[in-house]
Amino acid sequence: MDVMSRIERALAKAIGQCSLPGGPPRLAAAMHDSVFPRGARIRPRLCMAVAAACGEDSPALTDAAAASIELMHCASLVHDDLPCFDDAATRRGKPTVHVTHGEPLAVLAGDALIVLSFQTVIRAGMRNPQRMATILQTLGRAVGAPLGICAGQAWECEDEIDLAHYQQSKTGALFSAATVMGAAAAGTDAEPWRRLGELLGEAYQVADDLRDVVCTPEELGKPIGQDEAHGRPNAVKLLGLDGAIARLDALAEAAAASVPDCRGGADLRAHILSETMRLLPKELARRAA
Amino acid sequence: MDVMSRIERALAKAIGQCSLPGGPPRLAAAMHDSVFPRGARIRPRLCMAVAAACGEDSPALTDAAAASIELMHCASLVHDDLPCFDDAATRRGKPTVHVTHGEPLAVLAGDALIVLSFQTVIRAGMRNPQRMATILQTLGRAVGAPLGICAGQAWECEDEIDLAHYQQSKTGALFSAATVMGAAAAGTDAEPWRRLGELLGEAYQVADDLRDVVCTPEELGKPIGQDEAHGRPNAVKLLGLDGAIARLDALAEAAAASVPDCRGGADLRAHILSETMRLLPKELARRAA
Repeated sequence: MDVMSRIERALAKAIGQCSLPGGPPRLAAAMHDSVFPRGARIRPRLCMAVAAACGEDSPALTDAAAASIELMHCASLVHDDLPCFDDAATRRGKPTVHVTHGEPLAVLAGDALIVLSFQTVIRAGMRNPQRMATILQTLGRAVGAPLGICAGQAWECEDEIDLAHYQQSKTGALFSAATVMGAAAAGTDAEPWRRLGELLGEAYQVADDLRDVVCTPEELGKPIGQDEAHGRPNAVKLLGLDGAIARLDALAEAAAASVPDCRGGADLRAHILSETMRLLPKELARRAA
Repeated sequence: MDVMSRIERALAKAIGQCSLPGGPPRLAAAMHDSVFPRGARIRPRLCMAVAAACGEDSPALTDAAAASIELMHCASLVHDDLPCFDDAATRRGKPTVHVTHGEPLAVLAGDALIVLSFQTVIRAGMRNPQRMATILQTLGRAVGAPLGICAGQAWECEDEIDLAHYQQSKTGALFSAATVMGAAAAGTDAEPWRRLGELLGEAYQVADDLRDVVCTPEELGKPIGQDEAHGRPNAVKLLGLDGAIARLDALAEAAAASVPDCRGGADLRAHILSETMRLLPKELARRAA
């Protein structure tokens, strides 16, 4: 089964467990719509690519780790889209969860997705408590305070923003978790994989900044110009268009070079370079090619 | 060290880990104010009472289990108080978290507390992965969908409310988790302890309904008459004042009778009866005594 099918299957299984009899059906629907239709699934694909490079021997645990990262990511999107944050009307080309299901269910769907993320790892990890514990620790650190995505979002509520911590928490944390958890799911010493995730998180941030400036809303499935509108830092504003593209290239090279020695290292390095190119807006990718 | 001091110490330790350097200070403050000053800490005290009755041999794990339940409870209060739910201005006699810190930080504090709750168990459970896994599974089930407190709150968004599932999820779930997790932390077969939690959850719900009708806002530290205002079911409305008090008595007796055989069973039964009496509004407790 290909990687994307594995991810979708793992997510569908997790979400399915929330719509069992006895539960409120609208919450289940809001949770479903928070996760489907799919976005690029960049973080879980990264997690699975690292597990494969490490010679994964426990695919069910890899699937769970990958799904748990995506569930956290989806939870953060649903909450970030709320009226009190970005007040976003569309996401992935569809109305956002609070627009479709109302604000209370959007809050609760995000909460329940955070819980489901942990549950997904716990259910899959019972036979392998040591790996489970590493994965859960990594997940918690990447999402909570002081350094996870909740903290990243909370920096936007400070008068003085610590830019490095802001971007590392808001974007880098889940990318680092993806690489570390992929290695942990495969039973490999996981910490040496953190640097790769950090570099890819930074690359993703630059690419996201580029898309916010260059794409059309149709191409992006959500409004553009949001950094400008919300007074947020943006690499294109800081470095110029060509400077931002050069920075993305350099980060992809550094990421590929950071891959620890492992069986599937060559494949993984190639995967990293092609994936980073895919992050570029189509218009710029054509120009770069 | 007495039980309440252990609980406060465990909570302070958990919250302290969220205010380390590198994190956004306002989020840390909002998380702190979500947990302190303390409420009655009913759920963690129940968890510790059960662990003690089972002959606890791993106090650090008991403390973590108890704290994790309270962190989830506090997270749910912060989110339930939000403008899109109860729009509550006061809690425990103080302004609510969104009033003090703003709505974005209230959403994020709740999110980060959910994560912290899992982290607290994971950190304490590394040396005892089997117990840790049982505790984490119980915690996830009690909080997420379809049967946890998120689901309980979400029933309020349905046109047709399933009253039994609503109350079991909204209130019973965390009480059941408290008893099951207390037994699991002590290394005891945990499932036989679930019934005790369910009965005490129901007793608490009746007592809460009584307080909502009988107390003054000063006594309660939050507005009264909220069930009437929000069209929610209330035991006093259903059974009358005397009927509701009789129901609370019967539930306390049933709970005490349900305690599984264990070393500290007699003490625990006495604890249950006195604690349930403490739930009564002062005026009614005087009358009942």
